Amino acid sequence: MADPAHSALPLHARLQRGLRQLMLDGTLAAGRPLPASRALAQSLGVSRDTVETAYSQLHAEGFITRRVGSGSLVSEQVRRLPARPAAKPQAAVPQLSRRGQAVLAQGGVRDFEPPQAFVAGVPETRNFPLHTWERLQRQVLKEYGHRALLHSPAQGLLPLRQAIADYVSLERGARATPEQVLVLTSSQQALSLCAQVLLDPGEQILIEDPVYHGARKAFEAAGLVCQPVPLDADGMQVQHLAKASSARAVFLTPSHQYPTGATLSLQRRLAVIAWAQQRQAWIIEDDYDSEFHYAGKPTACVQGLDPHERTIYIGTFSKSLFPGLRLGYMVLPPALMVSMTVARSLQDGHSAALAQLTLARFIEGGHLGAHIRTMRAVYAQRRDLLAQLLRTHLGHVLEPQVPAGGMQMACHLCGPLSETQLLTAAARAGIALIGLSSLCSGTAHPPGVLMGFAAHTPMELEAGVQQLARALRTRPLSTNR
Amino acid sequence: MADPAHSALPLHARLQRGLRQLMLDGTLAAGRPLPASRALAQSLGVSRDTVETAYSQLHAEGFITRRVGSGSLVSEQVRRLPARPAAKPQAAVPQLSRRGQAVLAQGGVRDFEPPQAFVAGVPETRNFPLHTWERLQRQVLKEYGHRALLHSPAQGLLPLRQAIADYVSLERGARATPEQVLVLTSSQQALSLCAQVLLDPGEQILIEDPVYHGARKAFEAAGLVCQPVPLDADGMQVQHLAKASSARAVFLTPSHQYPTGATLSLQRRLAVIAWAQQRQAWIIEDDYDSEFHYAGKPTACVQGLDPHERTIYIGTFSKSLFPGLRLGYMVLPPALMVSMTVARSLQDGHSAALAQLTLARFIEGGHLGAHIRTMRAVYAQRRDLLAQLLRTHLGHVLEPQVPAGGMQMACHLCGPLSETQLLTAAARAGIALIGLSSLCSGTAHPPGVLMGFAAHTPMELEAGVQQLARALRTRPLSTNR
Repeated sequence: MADPAHSALPLHARLQRGLRQLMLDGTLAAGRPLPASRALAQSLGVSRDTVETAYSQLHAEGFITRRVGSGSLVSEQVRRLPARPAAKPQAAVPQLSRRGQAVLAQGGVRDFEPPQAFVAGVPETRNFPLHTWERLQRQVLKEYGHRALLHSPAQGLLPLRQAIADYVSLERGARATPEQVLVLTSSQQALSLCAQVLLDPGEQILIEDPVYHGARKAFEAAGLVCQPVPLDADGMQVQHLAKASSARAVFLTPSHQYPTGATLSLQRRLAVIAWAQQRQAWIIEDDYDSEFHYAGKPTACVQGLDPHERTIYIGTFSKSLFPGLRLGYMVLPPALMVSMTVARSLQDGHSAALAQLTLARFIEGGHLGAHIRTMRAVYAQRRDLLAQLLRTHLGHVLEPQVPAGGMQMACHLCGPLSETQLLTAAARAGIALIGLSSLCSGTAHPPGVLMGFAAHTPMELEAGVQQLARALRTRPLSTNR
Repeated sequence: MADPAHSALPLHARLQRGLRQLMLDGTLAAGRPLPASRALAQSLGVSRDTVETAYSQLHAEGFITRRVGSGSLVSEQVRRLPARPAAKPQAAVPQLSRRGQAVLAQGGVRDFEPPQAFVAGVPETRNFPLHTWERLQRQVLKEYGHRALLHSPAQGLLPLRQAIADYVSLERGARATPEQVLVLTSSQQALSLCAQVLLDPGEQILIEDPVYHGARKAFEAAGLVCQPVPLDADGMQVQHLAKASSARAVFLTPSHQYPTGATLSLQRRLAVIAWAQQRQAWIIEDDYDSEFHYAGKPTACVQGLDPHERTIYIGTFSKSLFPGLRLGYMVLPPALMVSMTVARSLQDGHSAALAQLTLARFIEGGHLGAHIRTMRAVYAQRRDLLAQLLRTHLGHVLEPQVPAGGMQMACHLCGPLSETQLLTAAARAGIALIGLSSLCSGTAHPPGVLMGFAAHTPMELEAGVQQLARALRTRPLSTNR
């Protein structure tokens, strides 16, 4: 047999598999007698035990019947085996549900490559203190033993929920107790759970325009109707809220709006809170990379300003630590705790205990704070360098909108080039840029691109900018039509 | 301030926080001038820099306005801060969506305790070769470096998909290429994705009766209508399928039915396949613990018998390795691959690269096969011991239904005790039993309990049975009414 993995099987299993295949193929038809085990063993040059074991298993599976004294027959059941399609198997017409089709319409997934130049939303992982992490993980394994490998509660483990509650209270001005924290795999899971538990298909949610595509896709896949609200330098233009009388929720990235980088002003935060209270709507606050603010401390979160408990705060360790950790969280109004925990439990059970306990120690030991301080300085330098490189080498094409924080920079087009032309030239040079238009839903927004700077060393940033500049210089030669 | 974590903050941050709190409380009202920084510094005994830093941050956040030459004022915005509810904050009335209410109705989540006696569905983790695992993990980190900490594709990494495809082809008789494998966190995630992508709310799915509660809950939370089909010793009674003309899918645990332990006969497997093809329905095959079969090899899976590509095969490493690994998978008909991958991506992104790459090596190195062989012998012994202990000590109460495989044993009641009486007495003694009635939907099933044996040493099993026997002996004294 050509299957190389096949030879790893013991002899009797290969024999059993081969015989079953002959029956599935119709070569060994129903009712046909099988050779006596002694005869087959002799002709194959194997032991009689081997043949007996294979026959027993086929018997147990219902493929053969055995009669005392008169050997084995191919079972009558085999007559009912579905015929194999002759050549290319006819693929089943996929019958997706309507919601399955809504999911499919969202398309697109990430690839596993070293971050290309200017990838957005990806942190620098080469500076992560992996040895500290591994040491803490060994400590946890030593202390908890095999329990760290077992199931754990859907809400998350108390030591981590405590560490998260302390962290968001102190660093983000949230009001959080460990009882309000739900540990998740990612902010994406938080968005998906909010869409499912808080709104029904056809209901409206207000989103920023332009908006984080992962959020819009999760909402649309859940059947929600996204109503874009325009932005300016102070974030969402809240005067538009008054018109949104039937919206049940608003999605915000108030610390550093994705993709513009704008910080929502205090006045607007209060207006959103008042709107939500008046309309009994939910505020979904995605605070995905607020740790990385380069001018003073980041602004305190909306959740801490909202006394009405209508704000769901979403955080993640994918940006502050590393994306492969698969740990994020929500801080929930107490009234939502049970339903969200059950929803998480039914969606995928719970998060890994070992990672949760290790992270709790990492935070308690001050390593999260130290890593954030280190990376804040690293990212601020990279942000400034990227802006400077763009002005020097691509000032005739791109106008960087230097953000006060975050891991990416929106750049507006200032030359004759269209967004599509720029993206095409960049893609040809193997450079990952996101067109701002692709993040816009309705309102007009200056054309441009989003450029990540966090995951790239100064040398990589410089090489990337020069590569992009080269790609744009050679562009007219090949596409000047 | 009473908050102990507060003292970990630098002085300026504590000052900023304190002032913000006074504004939120209304103590520092809008328009009120703040003390000059020099004066406040003197009266607090801190440096003027500390006060300046706190003021700057409050200014950046919009809480204070600064006028050159005339100091700082509490911002007019503060007038608009929502009033704090006086005593107990009025909890927001939760306004769940209809589907949120369907989720909430499913209730109940797991706890993080060492497995109590007879917990079902939990493997023995004390025998897991953790040192081998850690060694392979270090190898992966050395080879892949920081890439192992980054995002990875939603479908799962190719080395693991290849290892899974080989494993299910060889060991389970599936027809699988790596392109058909979708890596997930758990079989629960597979069930949740199937419910979302394949069926719409109100559509029918056939389930076994009794049934695995995690599956029924996931289906009902997604709005599906579960139609129970009765079982016997050969699994689902397929003659009932003919009546189910409007069902869009059938859920099966054919290797070891949960909870009865029955193996679906070949004849019935073929009948299910024919039904699915005729009705263009889906077969959802949950093969959660098929590895642990104690009499010959486990029967080949339904997926491998189905030439029409209407079967979704679900597997997990939660039983064969350990639940905290958070890795499971689906083998999908090619026609469903894109939609399921997008759905997974929108639900929670992807699985951890490090765990996937480590597991791929663990499988390729033969460690999965070796561990399964070890644990198969261990569990077979525990199954036999539990049956023997129950006959010796509780033969007047329970009649063990010794399964051919799996990690738990259904026991029927044979004495005067009711299921509720038994469960109450066991719970009082701290013993975890699942009542069979709680897993039944419609059809009559003998009363009884489900008892897990895999996670307990012989000594623990003996202690558990004796503890249960004691609890039942003392029961009449306290509840004989």
